[in-house]
Amino acid sequence: MIVNKAIYREGRREDIDGDISDAVDAARDQGRCFVWIGMHEPTAEEFALVSDELMLHPLAVEDAVHAHQRPKLERYDDTLFVVLKTLEYRDATSDIEVGEIMLFVGADFVVSVRHGTANPLAPVRRRLDSDGELMGFGPTSVLYAVLDEVVDHYGQVAHEVEVDIIELERGVFAPEGPDVIADIYSLKREVLEFRSAEDPLIPVLQEIVRGKFPECRGTLEYFRDVLDHLLRVDQQVDAHNELLTSVLSAHLALLGKQQNEDMRKISSWAAIIAVPTAIAGIYGMNFDHMPELKWRIGYPLVICVMVSACILVYRRLRKSGWL
Amino acid sequence: MIVNKAIYREGRREDIDGDISDAVDAARDQGRCFVWIGMHEPTAEEFALVSDELMLHPLAVEDAVHAHQRPKLERYDDTLFVVLKTLEYRDATSDIEVGEIMLFVGADFVVSVRHGTANPLAPVRRRLDSDGELMGFGPTSVLYAVLDEVVDHYGQVAHEVEVDIIELERGVFAPEGPDVIADIYSLKREVLEFRSAEDPLIPVLQEIVRGKFPECRGTLEYFRDVLDHLLRVDQQVDAHNELLTSVLSAHLALLGKQQNEDMRKISSWAAIIAVPTAIAGIYGMNFDHMPELKWRIGYPLVICVMVSACILVYRRLRKSGWL
Amino acid sequence: MIVNKAIYREGRREDIDGDISDAVDAARDQGRCFVWIGMHEPTAEEFALVSDELMLHPLAVEDAVHAHQRPKLERYDDTLFVVLKTLEYRDATSDIEVGEIMLFVGADFVVSVRHGTANPLAPVRRRLDSDGELMGFGPTSVLYAVLDEVVDHYGQVAHEVEVDIIELERGVFAPEGPDVIADIYSLKREVLEFRSAEDPLIPVLQEIVRGKFPECRGTLEYFRDVLDHLLRVDQQVDAHNELLTSVLSAHLALLGKQQNEDMRKISSWAAIIAVPTAIAGIYGMNFDHMPELKWRIGYPLVICVMVSACILVYRRLRKSGWL
Amino acid sequence: MIVNKAIYREGRREDIDGDISDAVDAARDQGRCFVWIGMHEPTAEEFALVSDELMLHPLAVEDAVHAHQRPKLERYDDTLFVVLKTLEYRDATSDIEVGEIMLFVGADFVVSVRHGTANPLAPVRRRLDSDGELMGFGPTSVLYAVLDEVVDHYGQVAHEVEVDIIELERGVFAPEGPDVIADIYSLKREVLEFRSAEDPLIPVLQEIVRGKFPECRGTLEYFRDVLDHLLRVDQQVDAHNELLTSVLSAHLALLGKQQNEDMRKISSWAAIIAVPTAIAGIYGMNFDHMPELKWRIGYPLVICVMVSACILVYRRLRKSGWL
Amino acid sequence: MIVNKAIYREGRREDIDGDISDAVDAARDQGRCFVWIGMHEPTAEEFALVSDELMLHPLAVEDAVHAHQRPKLERYDDTLFVVLKTLEYRDATSDIEVGEIMLFVGADFVVSVRHGTANPLAPVRRRLDSDGELMGFGPTSVLYAVLDEVVDHYGQVAHEVEVDIIELERGVFAPEGPDVIADIYSLKREVLEFRSAEDPLIPVLQEIVRGKFPECRGTLEYFRDVLDHLLRVDQQVDAHNELLTSVLSAHLALLGKQQNEDMRKISSWAAIIAVPTAIAGIYGMNFDHMPELKWRIGYPLVICVMVSACILVYRRLRKSGWL
Repeated sequence: MIVNKAIYREGRREDIDGDISDAVDAARDQGRCFVWIGMHEPTAEEFALVSDELMLHPLAVEDAVHAHQRPKLERYDDTLFVVLKTLEYRDATSDIEVGEIMLFVGADFVVSVRHGTANPLAPVRRRLDSDGELMGFGPTSVLYAVLDEVVDHYGQVAHEVEVDIIELERGVFAPEGPDVIADIYSLKREVLEFRSAEDPLIPVLQEIVRGKFPECRGTLEYFRDVLDHLLRVDQQVDAHNELLTSVLSAHLALLGKQQNEDMRKISSWAAIIAVPTAIAGIYGMNFDHMPELKWRIGYPLVICVMVSACILVYRRLRKSGWL
Repeated sequence: MIVNKAIYREGRREDIDGDISDAVDAARDQGRCFVWIGMHEPTAEEFALVSDELMLHPLAVEDAVHAHQRPKLERYDDTLFVVLKTLEYRDATSDIEVGEIMLFVGADFVVSVRHGTANPLAPVRRRLDSDGELMGFGPTSVLYAVLDEVVDHYGQVAHEVEVDIIELERGVFAPEGPDVIADIYSLKREVLEFRSAEDPLIPVLQEIVRGKFPECRGTLEYFRDVLDHLLRVDQQVDAHNELLTSVLSAHLALLGKQQNEDMRKISSWAAIIAVPTAIAGIYGMNFDHMPELKWRIGYPLVICVMVSACILVYRRLRKSGWL
Repeated sequence: MIVNKAIYREGRREDIDGDISDAVDAARDQGRCFVWIGMHEPTAEEFALVSDELMLHPLAVEDAVHAHQRPKLERYDDTLFVVLKTLEYRDATSDIEVGEIMLFVGADFVVSVRHGTANPLAPVRRRLDSDGELMGFGPTSVLYAVLDEVVDHYGQVAHEVEVDIIELERGVFAPEGPDVIADIYSLKREVLEFRSAEDPLIPVLQEIVRGKFPECRGTLEYFRDVLDHLLRVDQQVDAHNELLTSVLSAHLALLGKQQNEDMRKISSWAAIIAVPTAIAGIYGMNFDHMPELKWRIGYPLVICVMVSACILVYRRLRKSGWL
Repeated sequence: MIVNKAIYREGRREDIDGDISDAVDAARDQGRCFVWIGMHEPTAEEFALVSDELMLHPLAVEDAVHAHQRPKLERYDDTLFVVLKTLEYRDATSDIEVGEIMLFVGADFVVSVRHGTANPLAPVRRRLDSDGELMGFGPTSVLYAVLDEVVDHYGQVAHEVEVDIIELERGVFAPEGPDVIADIYSLKREVLEFRSAEDPLIPVLQEIVRGKFPECRGTLEYFRDVLDHLLRVDQQVDAHNELLTSVLSAHLALLGKQQNEDMRKISSWAAIIAVPTAIAGIYGMNFDHMPELKWRIGYPLVICVMVSACILVYRRLRKSGWL
Repeated sequence: MIVNKAIYREGRREDIDGDISDAVDAARDQGRCFVWIGMHEPTAEEFALVSDELMLHPLAVEDAVHAHQRPKLERYDDTLFVVLKTLEYRDATSDIEVGEIMLFVGADFVVSVRHGTANPLAPVRRRLDSDGELMGFGPTSVLYAVLDEVVDHYGQVAHEVEVDIIELERGVFAPEGPDVIADIYSLKREVLEFRSAEDPLIPVLQEIVRGKFPECRGTLEYFRDVLDHLLRVDQQVDAHNELLTSVLSAHLALLGKQQNEDMRKISSWAAIIAVPTAIAGIYGMNFDHMPELKWRIGYPLVICVMVSACILVYRRLRKSGWL
């Protein structure tokens, strides 16, 4: 579905009402202006209308329609083809939802294809509308603005993950905290997915910054800024991954410690109750000649002994830290 | 065994009835056409017929007959020799079966040698038959089509592994789930085997994409596309490997937690039953002077005390989460 | 907030009273002198006054105001922009506090921006005041002196971490030591944060030492010295990280060993007390014909048997190391 | 000890009876032929006879006599000095025995020095005797043939290790299998030793294949073939290493699971026997007024209650999977 | 403290009695001879005497006085500055003591500075005295000889560590072996320290061998030999590190196994003693009508039943491997 079509003329945007091909032709004739066509999960047929007009490469077209690509930047003749993963943090479930954005960046056009619910293009459009200078760099400015927006959002998601980890830590180190093993594991999974979204983007941006793509050379400093933010996110994601492994190890150690303490507590109580039971057993024997049984104070005495023994054992265990 | 021999003339296929050498000579004379000979687990003798005719290098011939090679691409004079691992997922056993395909790609011939049951060449032939343009690139198009098919199939196998992992996760985190340790381990083994099949292919494709092999230069974009899919598979396999390690750790932690809970439950019941036993022991003593024993309500009273004590202990343990 | 403004003229410092722009113009005219403006957590407005005057790049300005950047060195036209993390060890909590310093280093000015409480710039100023020769290298000498001070401080923090680890080790290997799992984990977290502060600085210094920045070429040996200290810190941090993983593993193993020993001790005492209980049970049976019950020495005999049995069991368990 | 001396003239071998120096001089004069001297653990004196004659470099000579070198290839003037580790799998103990072969390869001589019991040179000699064409490449052909033989043998040892791992897996996953922890560890040790033998050989062969040594350029394809087999072995060794870590983790998890099941089983039986004990305790009390004690059917009734209670508890535990 | 000063003239050594500066001037005039000044933990003042005379770079001087540097090789004008870590194995405590040696290598002088107790320079001097040829390479020969001695000693320390590991393995796998967890951990620490001493030396030697320092070019083969030994040590240290991790894992698994076996043994004995206790409890009940109590053979019969039951249970448990 085409969700957006506009022509950007000297930094100002005008919606295209009529045919795309007319607009593109017009853009080509005038120079210094370009067309941006935005699509959302287009079918092969819908996309064919656009790709035929702009003569996009069939391999790139196939990728754009089917999605599930790896983040990458490829040149097909005069067109750059970029694939990005968008991440969206869902508060309710602590899940990270992965979407995709593909961009075809030509000399006088940009085609954007979105898959999934995330829509980072709206803020991009607002920014471009308000920043005429940036817009002056032509289609490359769209590429920059989308990358900047997507990577900035990575930073926010990384922050949410950080918050989740701190939550987990609190659970792990609280006495009788909630059961967090499944949460640790599922966050680990999210972090791995996060990494598979952002990691392949690093070499892409490094190539741009090294000046491999002539169309980006005028805005190198901007792309370097994005790369820098991406590297920061990447470092955070690696640290999160390592932290989650550590937190699970710490949890394992705490469980072991807990179990040992429980065992000691249980055994202590068992020891305390075993003493009167053993004494009672002795005076429950049926020997004819057990003088204590005849004593008047025999019974209260033995009760006293039992209680004293219990208290004694209790105190010793308390002192040795078992209770 | 020769399972297939055909001559591809200007994108159209014709079966070869007669002698191979005649067909190859004919192909050489006409130009723009090539011969494809397909073999399945040939004996040294069967293969000698073909290799002598096409003057294949003895080291490559030995590799092709004995199989169990590492994925690689090597040049011997004018011939490229490619070894690929094919993977086949067996639903019944969740096993991954490994086969091998070797390709000799010369200027006017292709020799393919299959080992194992997997047969990715059938769909390759269908695709080539229907795509005359691709066929126009000559023998290189066969190389591309086989690589594309094999790597695509890697993607499907990776998906099956993903499904298996999700199944395992469900087992691990379900209360009283099935015993999954052996399954985790055997999947880990499969993943390592998977990696040893796909990982060495990456530098091979990178060399092609960097333009090291002149015969592939016309179709670089196609090979780049295959490389891209392969990198995606590689990333998935790495993630699977890491996930399986994590899932085993999580399982270990859950076992520890489970054991601790079981121990607490067991100890709780032991404590509950220890109370009446101790009381009964006391009133089983044979002292002459135990006034309670004479009381009429002694017996019902002590039963009441026992029951109350049990309930009391039960409630406390319930509250502290041990029961 | 501007906390410091001075002009360094031939190695001597003079405070600037008047307008910054006048001072910068004066510095430009005279040559061989430069202005240093120091700021602490400036607002965007405060910073605009300086950045407009010195024509700093807007991307760098944004980074300087918002902080939370990755350590880096970037060139914007004639200005170097450096971001450093400062670390401060808090004795009370064993926490490492992270701050940030940004430097804009131009031909005739230095702008420093501090975020956080750490203030390494005071000793830097003292050192520069007393070392005229170093000062002769111009603004680059400030860059060197700040890097040297910050990296030296890393070394001190690494030493504090080392001390903390030794403390932890003592806790882990002491019998009945304190609970250190949470401490190990939180130190691990600190170490990861440490690494994310110092690690990205290594390539920055390597680029300087390789001579990528012409303005630093006169002082290469000084920067090489800083790099060397940084590499030493980096190695220490890596070793700390690995040690903390090992110490947790060792703790886990010790817990397992402890638990086993506790279980043996508990079971031993249970065995010792089970013997008299069983004997008492036997003589508590109500058979009419149990000759021992009639014996005069029956009762003292059975008590002797009980005690002897207890001693016997105790000795055997002692010998086998269970008690 | 000199165990072998021969002159290879145009692919045919002749034993040398007389003096080595005469033979070497003869070889030098005739061209296209070379001398091969084979030694086994020579003393410094024995070796001096040869090394003085051929003017071998003293550092290489020292290495050759003392053994315990790292696999390497070094050039000393016109002589290549190669160190290889030989591996021998001992079936009886599942041990891998490490030996060493050093080769001095000059323009018209080869000196081989063996340490340890492994003797891969015998098959090498047979192969060279029967393959005149290979022999035509001169001393380099000996280098190739030895490398090929040694690396091929690595492959066989890797296969034996694979078999041992499968054996271990069977032990780990069999219920009540043998104790395999020590075996896993000692195999891990063997694998590490294996890796330290084969891993340093990879860069050696890569240098040869990249054409760094002019004397090997005529046989590059042969060395590439050896490198290929070596890379395959290397990959297998890495996989074995990873598998052994996994198998130990799996074993640990299984032990935990086993322990939990045992604990449940033990507790279940304790619970079953605790019920009649408690009931018996109650009716062992000495209250005067316990009406049930007077009933004729009291005793059989209470026995029935006991048995029923046991059966009830047994069934419940069975159902919940504890028994 | 200056512990040694000598002039080496054409490979022969003469002690310097008088002033250092005279000796250095003499060496400069004569050519082909050089001065070696050896110091041990000099104070800044002591060192200033030497460094002023030879015009050593202040940064290097600071490093030499304060020690605790990273192993490195740096050029300051015409002087090479080398920092090495010396390792000393203490048999009594199995500790590795770390010292430091710094060398200033100029065209006609060598200054060596030792920190710590290790003294590898004495054997170096003996070797140089006896090897006039080596000495002919001038100050570089001292650099080589010190590196060779230090790295050789690394090899001996690595061997001691190997011996310690084998000792630990014996402890781990012996039934009821000593407690080795603290030993494993402390050896791990030693190995990490070892690595931080030898690992940074590798790139230093690789740079020398690649010919980066013209003064070492005449003796490249000697330095290559040292590098080779260093790589061997590095590989051993890595293997030791990995082995220690494995041995701790194996120990953990053995502890788990041991605990399970202990638990089974304990439970078995508890089961055996529970049977007579339960039977005794039944015949301790006070029912009026318990016919067995009246039987003459009641008591011996029930004792027989108890003993038989115990034997029966014992046998079953024995058979199932629990006892």
